[in-house]
Amino acid sequence: MSRSYIAGPVQALINEFSKLPTVGPKTAARLVFYLLNRPRGDAQSLADAIVALKDRVRLCSVCFSITEEDPCAICTDERRDPALLCVVAEAKDIYAIERTNAFRGTYHVLGGLISPMDGIGPTQLRVSELLERLQGEQRREVVIATNPNAEGDATALYLSRLIAPSGISVTRLAYGLPIGGDLDYADEVTLAKALEGRRAL
Amino acid sequence: MSRSYIAGPVQALINEFSKLPTVGPKTAARLVFYLLNRPRGDAQSLADAIVALKDRVRLCSVCFSITEEDPCAICTDERRDPALLCVVAEAKDIYAIERTNAFRGTYHVLGGLISPMDGIGPTQLRVSELLERLQGEQRREVVIATNPNAEGDATALYLSRLIAPSGISVTRLAYGLPIGGDLDYADEVTLAKALEGRRAL
Repeated sequence: MSRSYIAGPVQALINEFSKLPTVGPKTAARLVFYLLNRPRGDAQSLADAIVALKDRVRLCSVCFSITEEDPCAICTDERRDPALLCVVAEAKDIYAIERTNAFRGTYHVLGGLISPMDGIGPTQLRVSELLERLQGEQRREVVIATNPNAEGDATALYLSRLIAPSGISVTRLAYGLPIGGDLDYADEVTLAKALEGRRAL
Repeated sequence: MSRSYIAGPVQALINEFSKLPTVGPKTAARLVFYLLNRPRGDAQSLADAIVALKDRVRLCSVCFSITEEDPCAICTDERRDPALLCVVAEAKDIYAIERTNAFRGTYHVLGGLISPMDGIGPTQLRVSELLERLQGEQRREVVIATNPNAEGDATALYLSRLIAPSGISVTRLAYGLPIGGDLDYADEVTLAKALEGRRAL
């Protein structure tokens, strides 16, 4: 295909969209043609929202989540249990946990996971900030909500050893079968973890 | 989930991305967090490309495809065969055909397909512009490249009856099994069309 037959601004936006995760060249082209058929205002609000994201969003100085006002809405919410702290790798993990409506404590965003392969150690993460927060207030429990993989395991283990001496209880999310899943389709590691973590009925 | 815990600009951009086709709320959130982790310049070039699309792109006054300069690069390409005209519903169909490198004629974009259900008749499409173009130059063949569905069929039939009296030959894309496809998985209509259109070896 002679690419020059595609109008410059069309190809430019296809290229930009293609840089986004989950968006391949075909989807990118589809998005561009969708925008071409929309009123100018629709495209402008999308562009404005992208710029506003970078201009108006900052990190919460307490928990390091993403917020427009500092401290964030969770850190300033007095109905939240300050004795219960949930440690997550990224700010987006907070939204996943909030969607469950099952957690009423506060959060701490590490900014990543320990990964020797990528040269990321505890000093690249907000570990000292976490320890400082644990000293400041009366804490009962730290829930470590890292992903169930090698980096998540390593980080959870590292933090639990670091926090244990303080007497604060350290817990981690349960592993097991996903609800609505099929035992037949579960991978061996998940199934083994589900057996290991079996509970009395 | 208490949505107010999501920073305003984050939620606003999730909403904007969710309006795009193929992008659901989860993908939208993923795109937003990707942009949050990218340098400001990356987000700015995406925003600029979106605005440029609406500001710098227009319709070719000859074939009605999308172009930055009028007439478009295909209409002004002298290596193209002007006697061979391909009729498509939308400008994006041109890109699909160009990718094959199998067509060296020029195009005409109808701007849709005849669809009585949606109240779209020939007068809403660029049919009179097509007839005008057919009179102006020496034309040998009109290839109707509409989608293989009810609207595409109706439009192709309508145009072929309209053009036939002029003596210009009217053809349509072949129906049949997709290359690399499996006979076993082909739907009955496609398979029937493939049988109907069978060719001597």
